[in-house]
Amino acid sequence: MSTYERRVAGKRLKRIDGIGKVTGKHVYASDFALPGMLFGKILRSTEAHARIVRLDVSKALALPGVRTILSAQDIPQILFGTAVKDRPVFAADVVRFRGEAIAAVAATSLEIAEAAVRAIEIAYEPLPAVFDMEEALKPGAPLVHGAWGDYQALPVLDREGNISGRSSMAGGDIEAGFAECYRVYEHRFTTQHVHPGYTEPRTAIASWDGNGDVSVWCNTQLPFDMKNMLAEVLDLPASKVRVVVPGIGGGFGGKLRVGVEHFAAWLARRSKRPVKIVTTSEEELTDAYPRQPTVITLRTGVSKDGILIAREGRVLLDCGAYANSGPATAALALQMLAGPYRTPHFSYESVAVYTNKGSTGSFRAPAGPMGNFAVESQIDLIADDLGIDPLEFRLRNVYREGDKGPAGDTVSSVSIEESLRRAADAIGWKDRKPGPDGGKSRGKGLACSWWLTTGGSSGVYVKINPDGTVTVVSGAVEIGTGAMTGAAQILAEELGVDLGDINATDVDTHLSPYDYGAQGSRTAFSVGNACIAAAQDLRRQIGELVGPLWNVAPESVRLEGKGVVSGNNRLSLAEVAALSQRTGGGLISHGTFIQPMPTFDPTRVRNHPLPAWTSHSFHTHAVDLSVDDVTGEVSINRYVVAQDVGFAINPTYIEGQIEGGVAQGIGQALSEEIVYEGGRVLNANLTDYKMPTMMDMPRVECILIEKPSVNGPYGAKGVGEPPCIQPPAAIANAIAAATGVRIQTLPITAEKIALARLKDGD
Amino acid sequence: MSTYERRVAGKRLKRIDGIGKVTGKHVYASDFALPGMLFGKILRSTEAHARIVRLDVSKALALPGVRTILSAQDIPQILFGTAVKDRPVFAADVVRFRGEAIAAVAATSLEIAEAAVRAIEIAYEPLPAVFDMEEALKPGAPLVHGAWGDYQALPVLDREGNISGRSSMAGGDIEAGFAECYRVYEHRFTTQHVHPGYTEPRTAIASWDGNGDVSVWCNTQLPFDMKNMLAEVLDLPASKVRVVVPGIGGGFGGKLRVGVEHFAAWLARRSKRPVKIVTTSEEELTDAYPRQPTVITLRTGVSKDGILIAREGRVLLDCGAYANSGPATAALALQMLAGPYRTPHFSYESVAVYTNKGSTGSFRAPAGPMGNFAVESQIDLIADDLGIDPLEFRLRNVYREGDKGPAGDTVSSVSIEESLRRAADAIGWKDRKPGPDGGKSRGKGLACSWWLTTGGSSGVYVKINPDGTVTVVSGAVEIGTGAMTGAAQILAEELGVDLGDINATDVDTHLSPYDYGAQGSRTAFSVGNACIAAAQDLRRQIGELVGPLWNVAPESVRLEGKGVVSGNNRLSLAEVAALSQRTGGGLISHGTFIQPMPTFDPTRVRNHPLPAWTSHSFHTHAVDLSVDDVTGEVSINRYVVAQDVGFAINPTYIEGQIEGGVAQGIGQALSEEIVYEGGRVLNANLTDYKMPTMMDMPRVECILIEKPSVNGPYGAKGVGEPPCIQPPAAIANAIAAATGVRIQTLPITAEKIALARLKDGD
Repeated sequence: MSTYERRVAGKRLKRIDGIGKVTGKHVYASDFALPGMLFGKILRSTEAHARIVRLDVSKALALPGVRTILSAQDIPQILFGTAVKDRPVFAADVVRFRGEAIAAVAATSLEIAEAAVRAIEIAYEPLPAVFDMEEALKPGAPLVHGAWGDYQALPVLDREGNISGRSSMAGGDIEAGFAECYRVYEHRFTTQHVHPGYTEPRTAIASWDGNGDVSVWCNTQLPFDMKNMLAEVLDLPASKVRVVVPGIGGGFGGKLRVGVEHFAAWLARRSKRPVKIVTTSEEELTDAYPRQPTVITLRTGVSKDGILIAREGRVLLDCGAYANSGPATAALALQMLAGPYRTPHFSYESVAVYTNKGSTGSFRAPAGPMGNFAVESQIDLIADDLGIDPLEFRLRNVYREGDKGPAGDTVSSVSIEESLRRAADAIGWKDRKPGPDGGKSRGKGLACSWWLTTGGSSGVYVKINPDGTVTVVSGAVEIGTGAMTGAAQILAEELGVDLGDINATDVDTHLSPYDYGAQGSRTAFSVGNACIAAAQDLRRQIGELVGPLWNVAPESVRLEGKGVVSGNNRLSLAEVAALSQRTGGGLISHGTFIQPMPTFDPTRVRNHPLPAWTSHSFHTHAVDLSVDDVTGEVSINRYVVAQDVGFAINPTYIEGQIEGGVAQGIGQALSEEIVYEGGRVLNANLTDYKMPTMMDMPRVECILIEKPSVNGPYGAKGVGEPPCIQPPAAIANAIAAATGVRIQTLPITAEKIALARLKDGD
Repeated sequence: MSTYERRVAGKRLKRIDGIGKVTGKHVYASDFALPGMLFGKILRSTEAHARIVRLDVSKALALPGVRTILSAQDIPQILFGTAVKDRPVFAADVVRFRGEAIAAVAATSLEIAEAAVRAIEIAYEPLPAVFDMEEALKPGAPLVHGAWGDYQALPVLDREGNISGRSSMAGGDIEAGFAECYRVYEHRFTTQHVHPGYTEPRTAIASWDGNGDVSVWCNTQLPFDMKNMLAEVLDLPASKVRVVVPGIGGGFGGKLRVGVEHFAAWLARRSKRPVKIVTTSEEELTDAYPRQPTVITLRTGVSKDGILIAREGRVLLDCGAYANSGPATAALALQMLAGPYRTPHFSYESVAVYTNKGSTGSFRAPAGPMGNFAVESQIDLIADDLGIDPLEFRLRNVYREGDKGPAGDTVSSVSIEESLRRAADAIGWKDRKPGPDGGKSRGKGLACSWWLTTGGSSGVYVKINPDGTVTVVSGAVEIGTGAMTGAAQILAEELGVDLGDINATDVDTHLSPYDYGAQGSRTAFSVGNACIAAAQDLRRQIGELVGPLWNVAPESVRLEGKGVVSGNNRLSLAEVAALSQRTGGGLISHGTFIQPMPTFDPTRVRNHPLPAWTSHSFHTHAVDLSVDDVTGEVSINRYVVAQDVGFAINPTYIEGQIEGGVAQGIGQALSEEIVYEGGRVLNANLTDYKMPTMMDMPRVECILIEKPSVNGPYGAKGVGEPPCIQPPAAIANAIAAATGVRIQTLPITAEKIALARLKDGD
């Protein structure tokens, strides 16, 4: 932190979007409507892998109020996708998962659209399907994509069989490493499908205008990516597509990709009417972008005193029927296998696999909880075996400032030791196995991790209005994290105004500067930096405007107290803005920021989009819980998070992020799972898909560590994703401490614990 | 013009907004709707001057579907206005003209709102009223505003009685001037109320959002002024008001001020629902912003050989009940009294007068047709009296390059002689009195004038998109003139792309840079210049980006053929834009332009907002017409306009502007008049208010003169307003040439001509 006292940044101020949201006046995409709009509904496959042998929409089309029905034959056969262009808008001849879109209806009411979907006649010829990753990799397994070799794709290595992507990282000499180990441990872990659980369903309203441009109001996290993706499937130049995000009720990485926007846009184009589509819970749990299931195998070798020497790891990651961000997520898993630990010899591989299940995505900290669950569970297993305290074991191995990461990149602003010690202290680590507790068994666990702050560029226009208020036009959406409040606090700080003086506008890709999007914990970080750049330019403009007026050097001009000051000269910011508007078009600036990509050793890495991390964050979760001795039910007594945030731009909203992340992590740890059976989701509703409620949540004690990053605004680091990484591992370790039972497959349901204890008791 | 060949600017290319408009897909403000919106309707006074003694809305409020009724007692008593803050949202205790708003209703349908307006009970106590300007100026005349002295106002001189503003210009020694004259002529002219005649009624849809901001979609010409005006009447900071102009079907100066936006905003605020209001023809003809009636007296002294020596002129201008832009229009009349003529001794005065009639505004070339009608009619009268050909008379007196205007400012890029000669040649001036023509009398007339290009600042954001297209975000609205196509042509020229590569967005005051607005013939001129500034900055950015890449000097980098070029290096603009987005936030620029205010002699001027003109334009209209010897009906045989446009950015749309202006001028000359009787409009409908139709229009022959201006883009001058200035005078002069009858009061109806000929025949 710099030496001067900050007025706005770092303060617990109220969110700029808060009042509208808590009073119910905020317009989310799902609230948005256009006059005369139609309602869209999707016909979805009831087979997991099948050929469509008949599709007859004539009865559906004859229903009064039905305006348009579209299927693959009505639109160009364009394949889209993130890593691999493998997905059609509508399944053409073949469906690849149960829930895949086959046709779409636009009608004057939702009820009519639903009736029309039911009235479409369809017949299938079943094809052999594959649902299990390991089965899918066997020779002779049914192929999810027969034409895989012909697709356009980013480099994903190994275009073969059901492999949609393969990445690796390696360093040292793995064989030599293992050879010198005192002991080598091998374990297998599995994790499940988890839905991001945003409160607002995915929504799109599309409308075509007189210039042949399409406007799409939707709740995407990435308006500029959405624009490009829609341009692709609509076969239009990107500049003919306008994406507006009125508001978004949570995203968590589940709203990065095309959801229903392309259906709405195609239906609107053909019906010549605006079309709105909102997903149902069933659609969310069968065709959304949940976290991928994984199978992780780890082989770790250590010295007698618990120093990590060598590790080999492999992640299989189940993309479902379409690759989407699976290959990238699989790549990120490699750094999670490394963990925040020095490991001289390592070899990590990840394989993204196609199966006949729903597609998957980049849920908050993609690959984070899966990799961390495996690594941090195994650390406890090894420490126990060696008779070393798990905290002590970690402290002996964690990164120190200046260490090299797995890609040979430099790890900087390292705070992992502090986070471990403070979380352990807070949870009362010395007494980590309190034992029996009135029909329950009590234990404590911890898990630590590291994460990156994603780069990419952010641009803002900042206008100082003639009434002294400030408008910031950003291409980044406020997805509910408070990140745009954070960026606004930084802007207010820099311009010497109050947070209440800052107005942030909705994103409109026709009007906003480019932003890489609300993903990867980057929004407050990158937009905040863009705001600093814009404010610097505005200070320069103001200095050049008032300097000659006052006969002072432009550089002497400061912004403070909503005014412009040099020596004894002072004008209000409003006066200067009005003066600029009269004489030169107003105080307007375009600020941009792009995080530099750090150097790394390319020989260590194969096929990784983010091999070297920047603005690393470090964090430890510690939990104190009790397990019912009969039912296996887990109740969490205390939960502590010690997270390095670099600089806490607004501690209140960072704590909110941590609490929310812990809630999602507890869900993944204990209860959430999209349960597939033979390609069918058994629990495609929010009664049977069990997210934690407020009643299930412990109070989360947040310890904010401020080890400044090199690039962040005032040293801030990305804070959004990390909090959901460690709960599964920390909870698994605490359950083991409490009960002696080690569950290596998520979720750790009460049933699994109870059964394991019965078995132990055998 | 510069020496290189232009590819885009100067070409007859199709309008960027053309296809949407001709196919009916363009969304005008009147087409705009919001879900759940209510419909607003205004209760208007049926008295011209009266005290409201009773206002009972209870029966109206009880009608099913009525949601809100507002009158003066329900909102803060704020007075607004342009020159004088004299106008309430709703008449409080006193109404000042017939048609004034007293209350407003919001209901679920327009029919219910209309029924509710009828159900409001109201009683008046009549007050003495004044309708005639000259009566209004007499001592003891009823006062339109008793509290005039207490109002906030710009300097308007003489806050007394019914005078809302007074301005003057004087130079030389008027008494000495008249003393040396050979002859002195004195004449009186009168002109009428004329409606701007835009095709789209004034419309507003207002909606309040969760942050307490109000968005108003409307068809204003001045979104930023509208924002400020609404902030005033809504008692909000300006930055809480957002004005969006989806589209606008003509303005002509009639959509500069608050129309129904404030009613919609107040109704929406109280009903907590969006509210839409669209004016009817009756409302347009009773409470809009028509051209002011004037009474003009001229006293002009000349030498024996027809050289102007001295002129005294006075304009009375009828503002109606509220001053609005009356004082400014009256001031502009002073330059029109001067005309484009050297006059060593002069004294001009204008007085804006309150009467109990509807308010008035700044219709296209405010004060232009009125002043020109008087001056150019009198020139012909004098020339005839002296036996000098009217063309020759004018040529002896018009400005030469470097002459001083009436404010002592320098008149530059003077082309009046060329325009006179070319228009006269084209109309066949040598045979200007062909005489009898089969039951008709035929004659030719001409009139010349000058005009300014209004200043004020314009800002644009220009983004080069990664697909190589260009988005321009401007605060200026396309009101139907093609001006934004002109600005886009300039931008395309500068960036080396095609016009089709440019996208212009709708204006949204939250997102667009400031613009002084679509008024004063300034849009293509100022926005075009802002585009040049933005393009220069983009060239700089591109040079700095690719220069180091190619190892060439950044200044060597050129933009041509949708590419970036230096020596043998070449990248497409799309590639460079994509590169910039990946490495630095994209190619974005903020360009601004503000026309410098020229110097003038302040001792010559009292109370004038635009004393010195810049980027002067010069123009002559010539008409060949026949008058029916029995009915007096005028039929126009040929119509020629020779207009100096500086540089014809797009000749087609300039010709369109000229044709439209001539149509409006012919209407003012021959048929249009809002007819008042005792404060009541007798012809408040479009059947009895007679605008020319296509059948009444002659083909207009356009001669575009290109005498480059100092400041305009490629030398362009403002072109929008001038074409409606001269038709009344040119037509009056031609009628006099044809018939010997001189009509000095507009409109010159067939009846007036026939009656005058009968009288002459007596």
